Amino acid sequence: MAESLHKTRLYHKVFQTRWFAIEATTEAYSNSEPYYRLSCGDSAVILGVTRDKKIILVRQFRPALGVYTLEFPSGYINDGESRVDAAEREFAEETGFVCDSMTYIGSFTVAPSRINTMLHFFLGKDARPVIEERAEKEIEVVLVTEDKLKQLISDGLLLEVAGSAIYLAARLKGLL
Amino acid sequence: MAESLHKTRLYHKVFQTRWFAIEATTEAYSNSEPYYRLSCGDSAVILGVTRDKKIILVRQFRPALGVYTLEFPSGYINDGESRVDAAEREFAEETGFVCDSMTYIGSFTVAPSRINTMLHFFLGKDARPVIEERAEKEIEVVLVTEDKLKQLISDGLLLEVAGSAIYLAARLKGLL
Repeated sequence: MAESLHKTRLYHKVFQTRWFAIEATTEAYSNSEPYYRLSCGDSAVILGVTRDKKIILVRQFRPALGVYTLEFPSGYINDGESRVDAAEREFAEETGFVCDSMTYIGSFTVAPSRINTMLHFFLGKDARPVIEERAEKEIEVVLVTEDKLKQLISDGLLLEVAGSAIYLAARLKGLL
Repeated sequence: MAESLHKTRLYHKVFQTRWFAIEATTEAYSNSEPYYRLSCGDSAVILGVTRDKKIILVRQFRPALGVYTLEFPSGYINDGESRVDAAEREFAEETGFVCDSMTYIGSFTVAPSRINTMLHFFLGKDARPVIEERAEKEIEVVLVTEDKLKQLISDGLLLEVAGSAIYLAARLKGLL
């Protein structure tokens, strides 16, 4: 399904950066104006769990918001890269951990009113630290229990909606 | 906190539509390039529950994805409008229902890597249909039990991550 979402209307690029494009419908959408969407690659998001049931979060500065956030590890899927390979690569780059298994949980949309990207969720089991020199040194790794994670969400300290979504999907599917 | 998020870096507009703007940092961010973010108003998202414990979803066409989606009612907060007023207005416009109470659940970010907007979640209790001529006729109202909602999320049929987040926040806070 994720593939088909991107191709059902005719859009053309009207603004381009290295990370995303703004696309407009070729036909008027309302009041003679086109419909605009943000177009960018899909991402993998990883819920990694250690052998002693700790969940792995990352703390980093987010310039779009101007604050430090606590999130699940995630990142763009490169051209030609499979989703699971991207999940393993991003998880290792951001945390320095690797997992014994990486299981697909599901795919979700980040903002269906305006953005065409999909998030592909993965559960990484038996995560353990193996990489001494992490690729992304400005990211801090934070290990929490499941109860602590729920408390963070309830207290509004895990701000991103995708974090709630990957945890709930894994829990509802009985994967955690 | 939501207010402070928008003002901590210097950005200028480089592309503007009626619904959102693309802003770039005034200083270079990496490789001599600025950091780009999508800037738009905050939204209210509403988890409305009827007296017989049905949860109110909306089904609508989303041109950014080219598909029909099932979501919680939501919409932009107008200039000068309070968050709770926006929640009540958007809920009535999209569903034709009104609630006896509208309780603030919390505020979350939709995509902290790229977008500066916040979603403000509200729980509407004792929702009942009162408006015969809805403002947004192209939106279909869908009532589900909590078990059905969990099944939809687990099956990947409630695609938006914000839907998982508002449900989980309300559940973890003991509001449902």
